[in-house]
Amino acid sequence: MAGTDQTRRPVTGGPVIILADPQLGENIGSSARAMANFGLGELRLIRPRDGWPNDYAYKSASGADWVIEDAVVFDRDETAIEDLHYVYASTARPRDLVKPVITPDQAGQDMRARIADGQKVGVLFGRERAGLSNDQVSLADMIVTAPVNPAFASLNLGQAVLLISYEWFKCGEFTLGDGRRELGPHAEPGLKMPGTRPATKEELIGFLEHLEGELDMSGFLKPVEKRPAMVRNIRNMFQRTLPTEQDVRTLRGIVSSLTRTHLRKKPNP
Amino acid sequence: MAGTDQTRRPVTGGPVIILADPQLGENIGSSARAMANFGLGELRLIRPRDGWPNDYAYKSASGADWVIEDAVVFDRDETAIEDLHYVYASTARPRDLVKPVITPDQAGQDMRARIADGQKVGVLFGRERAGLSNDQVSLADMIVTAPVNPAFASLNLGQAVLLISYEWFKCGEFTLGDGRRELGPHAEPGLKMPGTRPATKEELIGFLEHLEGELDMSGFLKPVEKRPAMVRNIRNMFQRTLPTEQDVRTLRGIVSSLTRTHLRKKPNP
Repeated sequence: MAGTDQTRRPVTGGPVIILADPQLGENIGSSARAMANFGLGELRLIRPRDGWPNDYAYKSASGADWVIEDAVVFDRDETAIEDLHYVYASTARPRDLVKPVITPDQAGQDMRARIADGQKVGVLFGRERAGLSNDQVSLADMIVTAPVNPAFASLNLGQAVLLISYEWFKCGEFTLGDGRRELGPHAEPGLKMPGTRPATKEELIGFLEHLEGELDMSGFLKPVEKRPAMVRNIRNMFQRTLPTEQDVRTLRGIVSSLTRTHLRKKPNP
Repeated sequence: MAGTDQTRRPVTGGPVIILADPQLGENIGSSARAMANFGLGELRLIRPRDGWPNDYAYKSASGADWVIEDAVVFDRDETAIEDLHYVYASTARPRDLVKPVITPDQAGQDMRARIADGQKVGVLFGRERAGLSNDQVSLADMIVTAPVNPAFASLNLGQAVLLISYEWFKCGEFTLGDGRRELGPHAEPGLKMPGTRPATKEELIGFLEHLEGELDMSGFLKPVEKRPAMVRNIRNMFQRTLPTEQDVRTLRGIVSSLTRTHLRKKPNP
């Protein structure tokens, strides 16, 4: 639609948008278009079903070419988020996970506050029909769910990305069509972390994999058919601590200390 | 996507959505889908280019059949709005018209107030590429423009309808089809705890003392003059998880499992 000022550069600095297992190129493209409208430029794709690059994505991006061209593809969920400090999971329905739930407008303000604090944040969206798996949700710190008509809850992927991007953009400074500038509501300050910084997901996942390895050796994660649910619960619990990098080092120290005798008993000295 | 409760009827009573000169059936359908997600059901079409009914519209409505089936077609702009008390014109760019401009969230609240006052309101959207003509805008009382990235202002018709519908729905109480009144379902922020309850402080402290006892034995909490600060940090970290009683049992199981070999090595068997 009309209204693009070609002389101005895209806004940058917002959240990363991460699409897990997207199926249709059209939906990737419409997500990119939604992002560009609200100044977002960093798109990540986890296992896009039809490969990448994808002509349909390019076409339905309607000119948001830089978003499509800069998109990065990942094989593993964990790798796609490892450099982020805080991750939101977009879901349409309640989950059997203990996790805080906020609305897109609350998420917009929360993201502004975290980004202003130097954090790198991202929003994870699931596959078109099924949404995110519980394993994927458990990687996130917070769930974001748009209020919808309970009789017809059917946002598609591009629409869900649009609402999140819109709410992020809306709560910063913006210019109205008539040139008036407005300032969105300022976000509340988040968790105070004096003298340290939030752990990256890579650091947290590194600890979790260390812990899970030890629990495999100690026999805690048995029987094997229950292992996935147990791991999910443990990951979800430690996500909720919002650990600092110092916390992660402490947790690693605790696990090493508790298992020291255990390790000495391993076959190879 | 999952999340539709088939037993509940569509919400009614919101603004009328009026599409002037829509070109593609797909855009009419995605507008209907957006409306249904946010409880709107009254769609009007002024001179749809490809006639009406339209198979593409039906398909891209993704189940919002009642919106498509109840849509009413008009030949004249004036006739399409004649029963309304207040009309908003959705535009993407500034107009040479003296007319108040508001954002979608302000429009949502304004519409709520007018509807509560007994007024019938509508939002007028223009043709895909060109938007509303100045003549069409002049029929409206107020302009509504979504804040977008000035470097890429390219909301399509369905996306523009989505944002207006979302903001209307988000800000208030609505009536279900069966007459029950509900408060707009802003997902309450807060932790969801399906099938469990928050741990009592007694349970949490019991776990912490168990952990600290093990860490004393393993030598982690040394030197002794640093012990108070180390314990404080560990306690603070686990407090932040807001653990459930199930979480506390899991944490106890983890510590027991990690220290099992350790305990077997103690002097007294």
